Amino acid sequence: MDVIVGGGVVGLSLAWRLAREGRPVTLVDPAPASGASHAAAGMLAPVSEVTYTEVPLLRLGVASLRRWPGFAAELAADAGLPGAEALDLRSEGTLDVAFGADDLAALDELAAYLEKLELPVQRLTGRECRRLEPMLAPSVRGGLLAAGDSWVDPRRVTAALLAALDRRGVRLVRARVAELLRDGGQVTGGQVTGGQVTGGQVTGVRLEPPGDDDGRAELRADRVILAAGAWSAGLAEVPVRPVKGQIMRLRSPQPLLTRCVRGTVHGTPVYLVPRGDGELVVGATQEEMGFDTRVTAGGLYELLRDARELVPGITELEVSDVVAGLRPGTPDNLPLIGPSGTPGLALATGHHRGGVLLAPLTADILLGEEGELAAMCSPGRFRDIS
Amino acid sequence: MDVIVGGGVVGLSLAWRLAREGRPVTLVDPAPASGASHAAAGMLAPVSEVTYTEVPLLRLGVASLRRWPGFAAELAADAGLPGAEALDLRSEGTLDVAFGADDLAALDELAAYLEKLELPVQRLTGRECRRLEPMLAPSVRGGLLAAGDSWVDPRRVTAALLAALDRRGVRLVRARVAELLRDGGQVTGGQVTGGQVTGGQVTGVRLEPPGDDDGRAELRADRVILAAGAWSAGLAEVPVRPVKGQIMRLRSPQPLLTRCVRGTVHGTPVYLVPRGDGELVVGATQEEMGFDTRVTAGGLYELLRDARELVPGITELEVSDVVAGLRPGTPDNLPLIGPSGTPGLALATGHHRGGVLLAPLTADILLGEEGELAAMCSPGRFRDIS
Repeated sequence: MDVIVGGGVVGLSLAWRLAREGRPVTLVDPAPASGASHAAAGMLAPVSEVTYTEVPLLRLGVASLRRWPGFAAELAADAGLPGAEALDLRSEGTLDVAFGADDLAALDELAAYLEKLELPVQRLTGRECRRLEPMLAPSVRGGLLAAGDSWVDPRRVTAALLAALDRRGVRLVRARVAELLRDGGQVTGGQVTGGQVTGGQVTGVRLEPPGDDDGRAELRADRVILAAGAWSAGLAEVPVRPVKGQIMRLRSPQPLLTRCVRGTVHGTPVYLVPRGDGELVVGATQEEMGFDTRVTAGGLYELLRDARELVPGITELEVSDVVAGLRPGTPDNLPLIGPSGTPGLALATGHHRGGVLLAPLTADILLGEEGELAAMCSPGRFRDIS
Repeated sequence: MDVIVGGGVVGLSLAWRLAREGRPVTLVDPAPASGASHAAAGMLAPVSEVTYTEVPLLRLGVASLRRWPGFAAELAADAGLPGAEALDLRSEGTLDVAFGADDLAALDELAAYLEKLELPVQRLTGRECRRLEPMLAPSVRGGLLAAGDSWVDPRRVTAALLAALDRRGVRLVRARVAELLRDGGQVTGGQVTGGQVTGGQVTGVRLEPPGDDDGRAELRADRVILAAGAWSAGLAEVPVRPVKGQIMRLRSPQPLLTRCVRGTVHGTPVYLVPRGDGELVVGATQEEMGFDTRVTAGGLYELLRDARELVPGITELEVSDVVAGLRPGTPDNLPLIGPSGTPGLALATGHHRGGVLLAPLTADILLGEEGELAAMCSPGRFRDIS
């Protein structure tokens, strides 16, 4: 029996894929699909998100993006949905736009770099950008179209995953995990202790009161998979920290954009993700604030200011949702997927901004996929995980 | 029996004051205290709100402000509250600040004008402003302190009014009024008809289904008092239109300001109203948009941008509430208080931005106060009201 701790998009995907393979699994989360996955915009955009130092992350992203159409089709079928379009999976690409000469030069460099990696992008003039997206600001002077980039609605994905789990009879325990149960080692509490916890096989989890539906305080497991995002560090010694993101959802009668649009305004990246129903997601701040999920005046101000620079027409749209989530950041920006150094404990955390994109790949690795991609995500690259 | 249509701060105040006088009254509102009164900041600031063309409104405001301490003390007692401080009634004054030379010249002119009206204000340098309010922006170059201006928390006021009505046994019918009942005249529907409705004594109201708690569709009245704010024009021919205001509430552990602070940024007036519990109200847009209560990206952006100019430190505060309300505007910006031309119909509407400030005066006039103030508010100044 696997016990998965954490019901975000990663933990839910994992539970679903394990259940599809006929493997016994229980998922534990006090409020599934309410954390970073609820805040996320759902960009599946490894190419336009690339930076020069992050080729490994780019490779993971490209590999996982290729698996998304199949993942979405299977999920939709399992959830009883008509098809992957019910998840708003779209692939019209991302348009990365530039305003000034410096931005344009940076786009040229990025285009050359991506071509070297054999990732197809297309350099566009300002006029060509506005032909594709007429609502773009007149001040946009050029752009880069990553035609393969996609996006999906994470709220629909987690809802579909919960439906699929329900249809497969997977046990969902709505409780908070107090600590991991360990045999022969020191017990970790609900806080990062700072020191290293040595040895000790993980044998299950202890729940906070009142326990599960039957009042039981402990769940035994052959393997515990820690998929608790930013909260993972409270249960084991893993190098994960919360990176706060504030994000806003606007609503218009008609979609304002056809593609994802992103750009750098006042030195800050901002993106707009359009949904078929007229929702437009504007994201996202990146703040090192600890476990702080307050929506702030400064956060909203920056999102609105920067988004207006890209698409002035958002001014008239209704604000339908503002929320802050905590991404699980790691020291090298790569996720932690696979067995930890501690017997009985595996990890599926540290996905930072890529949880939705990397969910299919993460599940494949924990179902046994080996090779270079799995090796890149191996928790073994860090010492002292236990 | 009076029937009051509308449970905002004006209608509730009126019902309470009538009940205190022992007069039978019923109040009808599908959702009391949820409209413009719920959005309002609660500034009791006739002096700092003055403009050159609005001496009559200034006189009404000054007169009603003088009545507020007594009104609040009686209300608190009637609602079972310890005292007026439970309504967060405060009188530390309003500080109107200026940034540029033009703004400073305008403040000088305003100061001279107010002195002529024997309304005491004090001109301050930028340094003096920051000594009073250390969180003000360094770019503030001068200010005008209206020491007598006050403010109150409108949400506490309407909650206290509802409690006081309950304690006095006033009947509150939670239903929507479909139309006024008229004898011998044309019946108006739920829309402004454009034409004049002549004659016909108003004898009560007809409720939308399902009627009152006993399923009755009609309430008979000796007098119907229309206090439905921006919605008044749907029930009778009154020259009232909705003026949309978007407003935002921030929250800080400690109050950031001691006084109300206002200023003009990018040509738009903005104000910040501090509450004792750390809430800071930032308002408000003024938009002619009809019956539109959407919170928009542009509205929030302007509030945040302008408030940051006055007090940069708001950036760190949590956004606790964003809401849009509809103020009842009139052609001359003065309220409509008193008997209409139609027998059986009185008005208490058209208070625009002054409903909270003018509530005590409004009640006094409808309880029978005569004189110059009452004459200024008389609906008789407009033709064709019926």
